[in-house]
Amino acid sequence: MTVKEIKFTRGVPPACAFPADRLADCACAVLKDNAAVVLQYGGPGGFPPLRQAIAAEAGVEESRVAVGQGSLQLLDILARNLVKPGTAVFVENPTYDRTLSVMRHAEARVVGVPLQPDGMDIDFVEDQLKEGVRPRLLYTIPDFQNPSGVVLALAKRQRLVELAERYDFWLAEDIPYRKLRYHGESLPTFLSLAPERTIQLSSYSKLIGPGVRVGSAVMPTGLAPAILKFIDDTYICPSYLTQAMVYEFIARGWLDENITSLRKLYAPRLQAMLEALERELGSLATWFKPQGGFFVGVNLMGRVTGDALLACAREAGLVLTDGRGFYSDRRGDAFVRLPFSALTPEEICEGVARLAGVVRQVMA
Amino acid sequence: MTVKEIKFTRGVPPACAFPADRLADCACAVLKDNAAVVLQYGGPGGFPPLRQAIAAEAGVEESRVAVGQGSLQLLDILARNLVKPGTAVFVENPTYDRTLSVMRHAEARVVGVPLQPDGMDIDFVEDQLKEGVRPRLLYTIPDFQNPSGVVLALAKRQRLVELAERYDFWLAEDIPYRKLRYHGESLPTFLSLAPERTIQLSSYSKLIGPGVRVGSAVMPTGLAPAILKFIDDTYICPSYLTQAMVYEFIARGWLDENITSLRKLYAPRLQAMLEALERELGSLATWFKPQGGFFVGVNLMGRVTGDALLACAREAGLVLTDGRGFYSDRRGDAFVRLPFSALTPEEICEGVARLAGVVRQVMA
Repeated sequence: MTVKEIKFTRGVPPACAFPADRLADCACAVLKDNAAVVLQYGGPGGFPPLRQAIAAEAGVEESRVAVGQGSLQLLDILARNLVKPGTAVFVENPTYDRTLSVMRHAEARVVGVPLQPDGMDIDFVEDQLKEGVRPRLLYTIPDFQNPSGVVLALAKRQRLVELAERYDFWLAEDIPYRKLRYHGESLPTFLSLAPERTIQLSSYSKLIGPGVRVGSAVMPTGLAPAILKFIDDTYICPSYLTQAMVYEFIARGWLDENITSLRKLYAPRLQAMLEALERELGSLATWFKPQGGFFVGVNLMGRVTGDALLACAREAGLVLTDGRGFYSDRRGDAFVRLPFSALTPEEICEGVARLAGVVRQVMA
Repeated sequence: MTVKEIKFTRGVPPACAFPADRLADCACAVLKDNAAVVLQYGGPGGFPPLRQAIAAEAGVEESRVAVGQGSLQLLDILARNLVKPGTAVFVENPTYDRTLSVMRHAEARVVGVPLQPDGMDIDFVEDQLKEGVRPRLLYTIPDFQNPSGVVLALAKRQRLVELAERYDFWLAEDIPYRKLRYHGESLPTFLSLAPERTIQLSSYSKLIGPGVRVGSAVMPTGLAPAILKFIDDTYICPSYLTQAMVYEFIARGWLDENITSLRKLYAPRLQAMLEALERELGSLATWFKPQGGFFVGVNLMGRVTGDALLACAREAGLVLTDGRGFYSDRRGDAFVRLPFSALTPEEICEGVARLAGVVRQVMA
């Protein structure tokens, strides 16, 4: 008898979360009413009504917004414009693995800032700055961080803003999970704290579906024109068709409804994850305790090698992501990212039980 | 009374060319039958059935194909991987202006190859190579070139293949207009002449609509894995949703029907353009005589400055693209790109008549 594999790998929404019928309605509507616009070339900033809606929600001018094919594409373009070989960029350690790839392609000198239960270690940031490190950019996922689930505390946000002002660097906040909060209250965004210091990246991948490939960047006034010109030079424009579908979805009130139903879907999954961790791994690991998002990051206690952990997990019918990929210094052997979004509570319980067995085995 | 402006600017399809209803049917079908795939993240190569269809048409393995958000995005990624600061890249002079932007961002040393009525001057290419210039890439639009309309002669294609083999460089052929041939016979593609020497870029922007943002690259076997990894690193995947719509459109036989109706739409426009040029500009200019595509490139005889031409045209109710933007050396003051795709025969006649008046005025 083969054991059914459980995948604790990418943080993706489950298929049941996709509002397919409503998106089909939106596609029909925009193709019926606005084909001359949505099937044509457009401007580099994206479909104007969506761009305006994002600008209005952010409280900024439309000219500061670029809506692209996912926020990673926009981060890549920002890196190509802001980072020269050797430019220092601060990131959380661990952080989103593709941010590390993008920064590696830009030949940034990535400085990984240790992560604490309330977000990155600001004393470490300040020490680096005092020692003369001059970053162009600090990249953070302040809400339900990927891969840890951590939320950056308000006092830390405020200190980062002060440091960014004093040492003159951009704050890039990536907030794709922000609206997927299942308990508690949201903290202010960097954009609200420091409107002209912040690059705010976000996405509809987790709120509607990754396949629409619609993400956005809100940029400081002085930065936006160069980025928009760069977009025009290198891909002309994003798909107005998918962006118009997203706009239509929002305008009909369906985004808010979808977020409500996603919260209902994910909240018990997060709870199942936290309970299973307590039950199974209480003596073997520590973990962050998020109130939203897709992930719980687990730090195994004791000595573990990533290779042994992954291989042993695979044998136990458990697919894990290599924790080292999230670390700028690759020192993530003992880190396990557990996405709960695409698994049922039963799968989560079973998966964490298997993980506990694996951990006992590799630490024996 | 104000004169209605005539825009001889971008080469775009007119709104009447967009198969909006059929695309809406395709959107509904793929969202009904395949939402779990088309709304999810996917692989960097694009929606597998479309990727397979493109591979089959090109006669290559699927693993050699990337389907992206338009072919320019893929050219940009190829340039980022193949071109280092100072790397020589050969292009036609004039060429597509955004290819020049992409190469400028990659810090290529762009070598503009003079354009003749049967395509780029191969003796010039050979002389450059003999003088020791070592390009990594030669970029050409062999069929109905943008901005000139020129088709590269078969003998020249064959000589370029020989040179590429002898001096070891890639041939990048960009063929978005190839299927929009209104008379005569197609010549073999570079891909068919030199399957492992060629990067073949193409797009559905002109065959379905730019707004779907679906273009493709067929790459040499040895090059494809690095490019696909780079895509995965920098934008994860393109929109499977729009690519699935394009695939559905093809599978239903609608692409072939659409191409047939586009040929019927554009052929009389090309004819009107060529007749108007003969009638109005016979003694003032020379021009290429394409059998397809979107453009006729015109070389004005005599001394003209681009600024005076554009300003004077604007006064006459005529919007022109700055010809200098198509030249790697910017020596395009006397070059005018006339796109006929989005104008009616009547507008074309009136536009060319106005152009003749403008030319007489600026050359006086």
